[in-house]
Amino acid sequence: MKWLKEGSITSPQGFAAAGISCGIKAKKKKDLALIVSEAEASVGAAFTTNRIKAAPVKLSMQNAKRGVVKAIVANSGNANACTGVSGIRDARSMVEKVAALIGCSRNKILVCSTGPIGKAMPIQLVLAGIEKAFKRLSRLEGSSAAKAIRTTDTTTKQCAVEIVVNGKRIRIGGMAKGAGMIHPNMATMLSFISSDALIDRKLLQHLTTELVQETFNRISVDGDTSTNDTVIVLANGLAENEILTNEHPELETFKNALREVMARLAQKIIQDGECISHVVNVQIQGASSAIDAKKVADAIARSPLVKSSWAGNDPNWGRLMDVIGFSGAKVREELIDVFYDGLCAVKGGTAGCVPPSRLRRVAKKRNYGIVIDLHLGKGTYEIWANDLTVGYVKFNMGE
Amino acid sequence: MKWLKEGSITSPQGFAAAGISCGIKAKKKKDLALIVSEAEASVGAAFTTNRIKAAPVKLSMQNAKRGVVKAIVANSGNANACTGVSGIRDARSMVEKVAALIGCSRNKILVCSTGPIGKAMPIQLVLAGIEKAFKRLSRLEGSSAAKAIRTTDTTTKQCAVEIVVNGKRIRIGGMAKGAGMIHPNMATMLSFISSDALIDRKLLQHLTTELVQETFNRISVDGDTSTNDTVIVLANGLAENEILTNEHPELETFKNALREVMARLAQKIIQDGECISHVVNVQIQGASSAIDAKKVADAIARSPLVKSSWAGNDPNWGRLMDVIGFSGAKVREELIDVFYDGLCAVKGGTAGCVPPSRLRRVAKKRNYGIVIDLHLGKGTYEIWANDLTVGYVKFNMGE
Repeated sequence: MKWLKEGSITSPQGFAAAGISCGIKAKKKKDLALIVSEAEASVGAAFTTNRIKAAPVKLSMQNAKRGVVKAIVANSGNANACTGVSGIRDARSMVEKVAALIGCSRNKILVCSTGPIGKAMPIQLVLAGIEKAFKRLSRLEGSSAAKAIRTTDTTTKQCAVEIVVNGKRIRIGGMAKGAGMIHPNMATMLSFISSDALIDRKLLQHLTTELVQETFNRISVDGDTSTNDTVIVLANGLAENEILTNEHPELETFKNALREVMARLAQKIIQDGECISHVVNVQIQGASSAIDAKKVADAIARSPLVKSSWAGNDPNWGRLMDVIGFSGAKVREELIDVFYDGLCAVKGGTAGCVPPSRLRRVAKKRNYGIVIDLHLGKGTYEIWANDLTVGYVKFNMGE
Repeated sequence: MKWLKEGSITSPQGFAAAGISCGIKAKKKKDLALIVSEAEASVGAAFTTNRIKAAPVKLSMQNAKRGVVKAIVANSGNANACTGVSGIRDARSMVEKVAALIGCSRNKILVCSTGPIGKAMPIQLVLAGIEKAFKRLSRLEGSSAAKAIRTTDTTTKQCAVEIVVNGKRIRIGGMAKGAGMIHPNMATMLSFISSDALIDRKLLQHLTTELVQETFNRISVDGDTSTNDTVIVLANGLAENEILTNEHPELETFKNALREVMARLAQKIIQDGECISHVVNVQIQGASSAIDAKKVADAIARSPLVKSSWAGNDPNWGRLMDVIGFSGAKVREELIDVFYDGLCAVKGGTAGCVPPSRLRRVAKKRNYGIVIDLHLGKGTYEIWANDLTVGYVKFNMGE
């Protein structure tokens, strides 16, 4: 597997993109992205588990089920969520506009929105924007599209890889956005991934579901799951490889490459968490079950006391122990070990022998790992979480 | 029912208290409280649901089960949690010291600790402090005791009421501490309540369990449940009323008074949440079940995005809708109404007709109420929650 320099959603064959400003956001900031596949693409998709879903999510869920997609249209600056009947109408107009320009069935268009909830879409601006974007579609505009889906992101998140399957060159490219309201499952994040692989339609959906669990669903900025989360994987078959099925001997090569792209995009999101100063990899081991391991990891990723201590470079294992205890997981206090980058902070439920000054050195790092071993069974879980900073609160206080 | 001016834990007959400095905290701050009942008292108690319990909690749970108590000893400045075998030994020494001074069985002493987790108790200082406190025991020292259990509290929390049952004057007095790590169930809070009522032992435990659910378990500062939470209610019978049983015609009078004392102490805690600037009463109505109503209320009380918006005086109902959707409760978006102090912000899942400027006026108040009606059933739940402030994060970053 090879990472491509300046890889993007248009690195695979047959994908064009555009990212333009249509006027949803002030100051002519890019706010509309269009991604089109030359050939009809198979689609795998994952959507927010929030029971309140934005209008575009409702529409895209229906269209993704049919399994064939020609284009994705996405706007930032407005979530089109909690917008009632007019929200549905607006999402539909966006889809119809793209379908008309491309000349395909409207069932083959997916639509995504991200931004503040509960505001009416300036739909005339958006429709005019779609025309403008359509004219600019190009293989060179992958980065513009990735820029246009950003909201509170401070970086543009994209990458691409190349693999060889059956002697054919296959590429996978992707983009993502998301910096707040991030918690499994997924949260305010969008990610679009393209490939020129030829792959069985059902298998692509299956892989998407499985790999989202291992990547995008393992990051937590602030514990909130949004109304708009969407991951879309398109594969248009232009690489002309032997079709990838469950029985294909090189399926693992493709699956690993897709996982790597998703994992890298997820990392880019957590590293760009709103005003964060630390990224902590939390690994739970030895839980009674995988479910229990997840309970502990999630409770830690949500605790404002633990996350404040992270922001303060404080290896406060007492707060970790407290959270482990109330997480709902089965625990035996006297068996618990806690490590900071391998240094033992807690041994058998009480202070380990590593001096606090050494733990403090770890806690000062921007990225470090905490391993918690419950010594009860074989359940494991891993999550990447941000700290809770003064900046995060200030940032989210505003109107 | 009459509220007593300057009422405290020693307002009921036969209770003496002391609050002194024994040296756990710096600068001679009070850190040790002793409360003694002249006569043996029946006890009702509730303890943290955290599976990791501090040593004093483990010991007090055993002793409270026996149902008869003579004294409570409590220290602040050290939680004696995650302290292993030596922690248990230290809690036992505290109990034995008090028992020896009073001249009673050590099974009749309850012990509580609050403060940082994972530090060894300076037990010699504490034992010397207990002797000092014993010498100072007085009916006039209720406030000193209430002061001595404070940690990050900025106020001393106490109150007392008087009722008449069967022509006999009965008093109930109480004290509490707690300002952070507060979430149902209970969290880092201690509350001790005294009464001179004569009441059936099992009934007192039953009332304590029930009323804690309605009061102390309805406040949330930050979503964390501590290792040390304890509520203790002592009733020594010195009022010489006809014994209160389930059949007693005036039981409700006593129960209401006890509820009022607990509710007022809970209010004092939430109003003194660490560095908070708003207290929001969140009422969920029309949920499919009481459990679903609780899910929504708890998710709101934990959401850093919602709580940041509260801190910013921002009536951001979009974030509320998002949390309602991922809370796990059954919801139908198009039925949801949301009110700020009675003003309709959301009607049928989308923006209501009240202008944002009027909602903003409500959101600026220190105390206000949010009512969420899911229009699905009869389930209700109520919680008092704090905002998430820059001050809270700064405060909890430190070592």
